[in-house]
Amino acid sequence: MTATNLPPLMESPPGPKTVIDGKTYLYFGGTSYLGLAGNAEVIEAACDAARRFGMHSATSRTGFGHNAATVAVERLAAEFFGKEKAFYYVSGYVGNHILIQAVAERFDVILMEEMAHFCLQEASALPGKPIVRFAHRDAEDFARKVRECAAAGKRPLALTDGIFPATGEIAPLDRYVRALADCGAATLLIDDAHGFGAVGENGRGSLEHFGLWDGKNSPPVNGDVLPDGLAIYVSGTLSKALGGFGGILAGSADLIERAHTTSHYYNGASAPASPVAGGTAKALEIVLRDPGLRKRLQNNVALLRGKLRELGLAIDDSPASIVGVTVGDAENMRRIHRELKAADIIVPYSTYSGAGKEGTLRIAVFANHTLEMLERLVNEFRRIL
Amino acid sequence: MTATNLPPLMESPPGPKTVIDGKTYLYFGGTSYLGLAGNAEVIEAACDAARRFGMHSATSRTGFGHNAATVAVERLAAEFFGKEKAFYYVSGYVGNHILIQAVAERFDVILMEEMAHFCLQEASALPGKPIVRFAHRDAEDFARKVRECAAAGKRPLALTDGIFPATGEIAPLDRYVRALADCGAATLLIDDAHGFGAVGENGRGSLEHFGLWDGKNSPPVNGDVLPDGLAIYVSGTLSKALGGFGGILAGSADLIERAHTTSHYYNGASAPASPVAGGTAKALEIVLRDPGLRKRLQNNVALLRGKLRELGLAIDDSPASIVGVTVGDAENMRRIHRELKAADIIVPYSTYSGAGKEGTLRIAVFANHTLEMLERLVNEFRRIL
Repeated sequence: MTATNLPPLMESPPGPKTVIDGKTYLYFGGTSYLGLAGNAEVIEAACDAARRFGMHSATSRTGFGHNAATVAVERLAAEFFGKEKAFYYVSGYVGNHILIQAVAERFDVILMEEMAHFCLQEASALPGKPIVRFAHRDAEDFARKVRECAAAGKRPLALTDGIFPATGEIAPLDRYVRALADCGAATLLIDDAHGFGAVGENGRGSLEHFGLWDGKNSPPVNGDVLPDGLAIYVSGTLSKALGGFGGILAGSADLIERAHTTSHYYNGASAPASPVAGGTAKALEIVLRDPGLRKRLQNNVALLRGKLRELGLAIDDSPASIVGVTVGDAENMRRIHRELKAADIIVPYSTYSGAGKEGTLRIAVFANHTLEMLERLVNEFRRIL
Repeated sequence: MTATNLPPLMESPPGPKTVIDGKTYLYFGGTSYLGLAGNAEVIEAACDAARRFGMHSATSRTGFGHNAATVAVERLAAEFFGKEKAFYYVSGYVGNHILIQAVAERFDVILMEEMAHFCLQEASALPGKPIVRFAHRDAEDFARKVRECAAAGKRPLALTDGIFPATGEIAPLDRYVRALADCGAATLLIDDAHGFGAVGENGRGSLEHFGLWDGKNSPPVNGDVLPDGLAIYVSGTLSKALGGFGGILAGSADLIERAHTTSHYYNGASAPASPVAGGTAKALEIVLRDPGLRKRLQNNVALLRGKLRELGLAIDDSPASIVGVTVGDAENMRRIHRELKAADIIVPYSTYSGAGKEGTLRIAVFANHTLEMLERLVNEFRRIL
């Protein structure tokens, strides 16, 4: 490989100021929404755990794969989500693989959001059941397909992202739940990788935003796996807003027990690495003791959305920490990306899952972006547009 | 949870001496075969990477997810396996998910080893193609089923573990290759989690043991994905013998490029955590500079197998670092496990994937078990049997 085709290298933790290829940028990329990936306490907790437990336990959880760090992550995650128990596994990517196997007996057909994340698409292949696609965030198309399932006597499992990773759009979960509620046995399964920690008053994500986190008119989230009625399941990650690394499922003891046994990430995969578990437990501690972090993030999000709207950009009112800016075609957005970069600002141009045909400029907002930083971004946008 | 139903907690790195629930045991559990999971250099490298890069890059590899640690793991793994390139991903568990999607156009039917690891079973569901099981390590049954495929004009993809994780048995890969060789387009896909780093002169695993790692009479391992002929693919983990954490695929540039694009662990999942990548790179450095480590492991394996055979136990001549001891029924083996534990020795009783109906006593051999430790284990076995 010559120097010219080397990929860009990140040379610092990701944060408002991030070093890439030797240069410090004002950075609006990635997913460290609460600003914890470079937090000194988190990093030192990772080091402590590495020294106490080594790189990892070198067994599955059912071997001798429990240590204080892993157990702490599960205890703190259960507390954060207000649930009985939690299951901490190696990557958020496989959370849907785990859940779809736990609820396998509850459905006959899969209703798949057409722009759902890759990990949901992959997981949907596992049960070997028919897959029907519904249009992106289209609650009417969704309701029509639910009715078709009901008419055919087929129990649906609907799969969607909570927050779409490139655009920050939120799925109309409230309308999906209403469509499913009269349907007999029906299941809604959400990947809320970008909602956990960032969205909702308590940071419980997209469902909380809609009042569906154990809401009055909806079933408990991640409850027991019963054969009838509407059930809502959600998994997500500790690797993004929550500042650690790895996937998380928090729910009833019944659900967690099932997730341990109907898939094999508990008894057949290495337990999460020890430095990762140690850092993750510390990040959860920080999130639990300092709700102000989440408030600062949510304030930054509202502020930036407002300011970008003042520029005449079409910005929706999603609560997500991702602000997708779509202006003109791909070539125009690539130009804006380059001009921002020339001004030492990174806003990735993304053609990622859900970004649409032309892609989008994907702005990630962090809790530790200052007002001055957000204003600088907006000013540069004004100049370049 | 009361104290009595808490799971056992590991309170040190795993190694010949491992602290579990406050007590130090002579430990023969898990998978840290080269003894690196608790290596001080590895641990300090993990800490250095955490400080330099934070918990992780908080993006996928195609975002800004490359850093010096991740790139180093791939460079060193390619060197270790003698291949052009490598792909380092979050967990060895998903290696077969990645590979099976990379070779999806090469097969019509899956031949599945009946006792293959959970991760192969899960991956086999992804393509939605017919699955035919063959009997455990039964090369004749395998050849028969290959012939049936050929007669039906169906191209087979055979899936098997290289080393079976509970018993240490090795798959008869040489005979599988011969059966597939005359079959036109045929693919052998191996999960060599327990072979990588431990088995073969250069530690390249089960294929190297049989002279099939780029051997004269077999196709190159992990080569370009061509439509015809026999092809052999293998993935594995850096989390076991190799002393780091995460999954690894090393192969031709063509295969790695495919693996990046036909699955989404490269562009759609978080890059491996930075402390993990830093520790893993250091572990690979150690393995490359000190082949004596592997020699000590292989000598310990041969020595222990010989001594257990002298006790009259049925011990095969597998090169694996796992020695499965099956004596009597499950109850008897549980008793032996308990009596060894009372003598401060841990040999897990395992009912894991491939262990068979009664389970097995699973002895893991490490490079840093001393002669005295191995002799103590044998003496206790003699006493208890």
